Amino acid sequence: MNIVDIINKKREKEELTREEIAYAFNSYLDGSIKDYQMSALLMAICINGMTDRETFDLVDIFIKSGDILDLSMIPGVKVDKHSTGGIGDKITLIIGPIVSSCGVIVPKMSGRGLGYTGGTIDKLESIKGFKTSLTEEEFIQELKDIGFAVTSQTSNLCPLDKVIYALRDVTGTTASIPLIAASIMSKKIAGGADKILIDIKCGNGAMMKTMDEALKLKNIMEKVGKFYNRETICEITDMNIPLGSNIGNALEVIEAIDVLKGKRGKLTDLALKISAEMIKISKNITYDMALQEASTALQSGKAYQKFLDFVKCQGGDINSLQVSDIKQEIKANKAGTVKNINALNIGKLSCHLGAGRINKEDKIDYGVGVVLNKIIDDKVEIGDTLFTLYKNKTEPIELIIDDYYEIN
Amino acid sequence: MNIVDIINKKREKEELTREEIAYAFNSYLDGSIKDYQMSALLMAICINGMTDRETFDLVDIFIKSGDILDLSMIPGVKVDKHSTGGIGDKITLIIGPIVSSCGVIVPKMSGRGLGYTGGTIDKLESIKGFKTSLTEEEFIQELKDIGFAVTSQTSNLCPLDKVIYALRDVTGTTASIPLIAASIMSKKIAGGADKILIDIKCGNGAMMKTMDEALKLKNIMEKVGKFYNRETICEITDMNIPLGSNIGNALEVIEAIDVLKGKRGKLTDLALKISAEMIKISKNITYDMALQEASTALQSGKAYQKFLDFVKCQGGDINSLQVSDIKQEIKANKAGTVKNINALNIGKLSCHLGAGRINKEDKIDYGVGVVLNKIIDDKVEIGDTLFTLYKNKTEPIELIIDDYYEIN
Repeated sequence: MNIVDIINKKREKEELTREEIAYAFNSYLDGSIKDYQMSALLMAICINGMTDRETFDLVDIFIKSGDILDLSMIPGVKVDKHSTGGIGDKITLIIGPIVSSCGVIVPKMSGRGLGYTGGTIDKLESIKGFKTSLTEEEFIQELKDIGFAVTSQTSNLCPLDKVIYALRDVTGTTASIPLIAASIMSKKIAGGADKILIDIKCGNGAMMKTMDEALKLKNIMEKVGKFYNRETICEITDMNIPLGSNIGNALEVIEAIDVLKGKRGKLTDLALKISAEMIKISKNITYDMALQEASTALQSGKAYQKFLDFVKCQGGDINSLQVSDIKQEIKANKAGTVKNINALNIGKLSCHLGAGRINKEDKIDYGVGVVLNKIIDDKVEIGDTLFTLYKNKTEPIELIIDDYYEIN
Repeated sequence: MNIVDIINKKREKEELTREEIAYAFNSYLDGSIKDYQMSALLMAICINGMTDRETFDLVDIFIKSGDILDLSMIPGVKVDKHSTGGIGDKITLIIGPIVSSCGVIVPKMSGRGLGYTGGTIDKLESIKGFKTSLTEEEFIQELKDIGFAVTSQTSNLCPLDKVIYALRDVTGTTASIPLIAASIMSKKIAGGADKILIDIKCGNGAMMKTMDEALKLKNIMEKVGKFYNRETICEITDMNIPLGSNIGNALEVIEAIDVLKGKRGKLTDLALKISAEMIKISKNITYDMALQEASTALQSGKAYQKFLDFVKCQGGDINSLQVSDIKQEIKANKAGTVKNINALNIGKLSCHLGAGRINKEDKIDYGVGVVLNKIIDDKVEIGDTLFTLYKNKTEPIELIIDDYYEIN
């Protein structure tokens, strides 16, 4: 086979055979196909798409490039949850404790932040001592003991996805529904869960900007799940405004704890909804029954206790959480009602403060970020604090409020 | 500027600004943008195209990446001719002597073979002693003395095109009309000619497979020529069957000499037609008058004498031309009329025999190739020789005649 012929075929909108896809991607992993050839192929896939059959094959090739985690020795149903990434998305830290305290195993492999969206691993590392890189044995033991564990992706799980993901990030080839679906689903399937819940974020602060794109992604991911006999449910949730009030690593862990301790709001509602979906598919009960179980786990304090056990088990000191004491309050320069908060711009601002990485090698500052003091539909007077910056530099930051808050 | 933003913009079918195109391509030349990023951008251009304005800008950026040849000290009109490449295309070796013996200067920068199509430089190197790499001074002196000179592209002419061309060749991004147009036109304009004649080959043995593609290429190249005030005429000529009877380096030079010595046929007709177009635009006379001049130059022997002067001036020994004496005749296994000769397959066969390169570093065997003993519309009896292979190995080659000749 010849890689140039394969690239030409996809450029001309033809369907690739399984052998052609396997040859191209596996040869990239072993180094015999160059990155400039793979990036040309990825761009052709981005623009011309992939059929369902091609996508199933790519998932399979990703999975078989590495190890497959066997969780069958853990009793009970294992359900994994994945978010396509958004601003202020700390849902994993809430649903893991809720769902596992309802008796469903939640084995969670998470990633670091990319672009303006945070990653669960970075968030957990804001807890001093928290070990995010577990061995397979530690991961399984914790799932047996507590029912919830989080680890960073092991190097042996879908290594092909890892190199392709890194190349896509620097070549303008991230925005491809089949490539996104293959990347997510291969890791979920190789991760060993029986059931999969995908939270597809949709809006200006997410990869999927429109409902049409989000629905296409939902459609192909559910098909892939079915093909591999892993029941997969995709929820499409709003990411035009940030999720919750806190954006930044330690700040988000603190907000998750607040919810687990009983704070109510849209974030709690969404966490309960996703928890209920996970419990429903795992226990084969109705959504209403599952929601009841989730609410009880939260209100009874069982979920919060589970979170404390989880942090302790992974070596973290819950009392170590710290946010920066250099604050800057951004005050309203007009009165009215908060009509919109721009998730993408808040995400960029938090990243700029040091909560995220611009380049892969950047170090994160766990204590910085943004807290939204006013949320959607809040009434605002001139001089009210709209949001607060937690910074590591004293110099004031100048910004145009209209880029972040729409007040009318 | 950010290369990923630029790639994303083109992926989303938006028009790039001149600054964005200049940043991307110039940064690639200086090494600050990586080949895997440029190949992704090239693929996005291949699939999503470029507007006329983008193409004009790219031509300008290519030209300004290197030197511009100044031929103004040579008296008379300078006309350059370029072929987009085909199987058996030795037209340059015929039209150069014809046109220059009519008093029009023909400064010709040529390339080596690529893929299955030959290159004029390789063909001329089958003449012992022929120097294909002239200094600028030697090139200009020869144009003053003889009116016709051929040199390989100098390293200072459009260096950006050179690196982009090499990358396109290995990344499945050759088939792009704006990229082809920019590559050809930038070199022609930087080469200093006043008038440009482009022979667009169209058919299965050419880059342009369909008349629709060929017309699009003609349209944009003529527009580029107009934009840069260099009158450009594009002729679309057939490349479904090989051009002439001989394919291979020394074999093609020999056929060109035969035509210059008076042999008639389709190849002669085409050479006269292209010569006439070149003379017409250079002298501002009618096509019929120009054709008369070209025919007279050919029939009088002036053109052949010009060819001998040209070879001598560049150090070549015309008597040194040699073809391999290992021949294999391919004989008809059925009777009928030759309906078609597959140019692409004949080109591949010649390349396979050693006349072309599979990889860039391959050495060419100047003495090998294919001679077509029967051409289109010839009557054939069983056992007649259809074509003859000139080889450098004695082992017989087995082939399926139907892949090369259609006889009915």
